Amino acid sequence: MDPARLERQIGFIVEIDRLKRVMRQTLLTDRCRHENSAEHSWHIALAALVLAEYAETPDLDLPRVVKMLLVHDLVEIDAGDTYCYDQEACRGQQARERRAAERIFGRLPSDQAAELQAAWEEFEARQSPEALFAAALDRLQPVLNNFYSGGTMWRKHGIRRPQVERRIAPLQSGAPALWRYASGLLDQAVARGILMEEGADAAAAS
Amino acid sequence: MDPARLERQIGFIVEIDRLKRVMRQTLLTDRCRHENSAEHSWHIALAALVLAEYAETPDLDLPRVVKMLLVHDLVEIDAGDTYCYDQEACRGQQARERRAAERIFGRLPSDQAAELQAAWEEFEARQSPEALFAAALDRLQPVLNNFYSGGTMWRKHGIRRPQVERRIAPLQSGAPALWRYASGLLDQAVARGILMEEGADAAAAS
Repeated sequence: MDPARLERQIGFIVEIDRLKRVMRQTLLTDRCRHENSAEHSWHIALAALVLAEYAETPDLDLPRVVKMLLVHDLVEIDAGDTYCYDQEACRGQQARERRAAERIFGRLPSDQAAELQAAWEEFEARQSPEALFAAALDRLQPVLNNFYSGGTMWRKHGIRRPQVERRIAPLQSGAPALWRYASGLLDQAVARGILMEEGADAAAAS
Repeated sequence: MDPARLERQIGFIVEIDRLKRVMRQTLLTDRCRHENSAEHSWHIALAALVLAEYAETPDLDLPRVVKMLLVHDLVEIDAGDTYCYDQEACRGQQARERRAAERIFGRLPSDQAAELQAAWEEFEARQSPEALFAAALDRLQPVLNNFYSGGTMWRKHGIRRPQVERRIAPLQSGAPALWRYASGLLDQAVARGILMEEGADAAAAS
């Protein structure tokens, strides 16, 4: 055993505790508080085990999906969570996140830093079937939480259905059946008045 | 695609959001608040990827470890988190958790209910090399968080070193190198006065 190697690994594990303090826009389903990025990562990693059968590819490498989902938000420790509907905040996001990845994964021994940073890059590139499925779950879960918390954040930010539809587009290529399911939820959300249609009067869903 | 099957799977995914509201005794490393069981599960699932090389068995089935860690605390949605040093609360814990498992995993289609409940039971039985390693990580992470949060909860509850040593005993069989590391942290904790030795004056570490 190499004590210096173990010290680096433990240093990384202690460092990532900070992801529990990165808050997302999404609420818990009971609306008691905002969700943080660590528990969100757990939620979609477990969702991957349950929903793997809906991946577009029949020979999905599920452990690879789970690995991506466990690390996909770590860069937010430095770069913060960027609200997906805030165009201003999205500028510079890529550069901020790359610097964060270098620092955070760089705490690990070099072989593991390379391995986990590669998983993060694969997720970001959204090219492999595993990355497409992982991205699909990352987009599905906020729709579930927004829907089951009564659309509170959609209404607070005046979000309209086409914005959510663009946001969940990765579901179409990564998990078409889940995309159809999510689209059905948006139909219900509009019908219940918790999500506005394009062009609807803002007052109608407030 | 079977819509009723997907509805059950989504129902489970929505249900488990509640694990984010189950609070543990452990604090985040910056002491700002208690940790919840969902983010704890994320933390040790990712720790498993980093520390797999320290498992006692050389041919560890790592995806199986990760699956166990992702589901290991789900029963707490109904049964609550039982503080490991509270002997009174530990009575009846097993029966409470079994009823919880039946209900929570039972929300899934029967094949997946059986699969994930089996993972939980394997974790609880602590017999397989994978379950022993998973249990080791579940015991190591609170030691790290207690140590790096200045032993606040050890001091608050008057916990003594032999109690923590008994608690981390699973590390010895699941990951001996990590057990040695954790024992070294306890030495440091005692030296810094944030953890009491057996028989030490309670005032000394308060």
